[in-house]
Amino acid sequence: MKMSEQHDVEANRELVLRFYQALERGDFSLEGILFDESYKQHSVMAGDGVKGLKEMAAWMAKEWPDRKLTIHQTICEGDKVACHVHFERWPGDPGLAAVDIFRVENGKVVEHWDVVQEIPTEFKHNNGMF
Amino acid sequence: MKMSEQHDVEANRELVLRFYQALERGDFSLEGILFDESYKQHSVMAGDGVKGLKEMAAWMAKEWPDRKLTIHQTICEGDKVACHVHFERWPGDPGLAAVDIFRVENGKVVEHWDVVQEIPTEFKHNNGMF
Repeated sequence: MKMSEQHDVEANRELVLRFYQALERGDFSLEGILFDESYKQHSVMAGDGVKGLKEMAAWMAKEWPDRKLTIHQTICEGDKVACHVHFERWPGDPGLAAVDIFRVENGKVVEHWDVVQEIPTEFKHNNGMF
Repeated sequence: MKMSEQHDVEANRELVLRFYQALERGDFSLEGILFDESYKQHSVMAGDGVKGLKEMAAWMAKEWPDRKLTIHQTICEGDKVACHVHFERWPGDPGLAAVDIFRVENGKVVEHWDVVQEIPTEFKHNNGMF
């Protein structure tokens, strides 16, 4: 990123962290505020747009009422925010590991990609996934 | 990241891109040069250290001789480089989507995390995974 582009990476990071907090507590009212109406979805878990996102969030809240999200690292550059996330669906769940990548324009998320995998119970090392 | 930390994100990005080129062409000689001997692995696909990485790379080269790697986006901040990657194991493979996160110290990769998933053939939208 050229500094002249003047992306506010700290504001973008904060915006995305607000979204995770809303997702964890099942507050769907925020999604129309944080996400632009042009929001483009690349995750295989959701339909397109804010509508698809709300449906997925509602499904997650119903399916996993005791879910817990832990953000292990955020990496921001230009208009992008990447987050490395542990998603425990229920207490004691080894959980899902995910990286979400958000693109932010004018203070709203306009595009999202993710990669998600189940965390296995056995590893070839003792370092864990995070 | 504070600017005073003076991480050279462009050099870090270039280092990581050199690794993918080596991985794609099966050049295992480079791994000891690009990766520090303290290299800590978090991927579930490999054993720890440079040894585990070399073994995984050799296995991939043998298993998928016609593999193709496409880097769709890189996001760098501080000592971290995140790469969103499409890995086609053979011609016509829908492939794997991955995000790799590398931590770089003194011009060498010292730590690596990843999340990897199979790309499905059907989506709830028409935007693809990348």
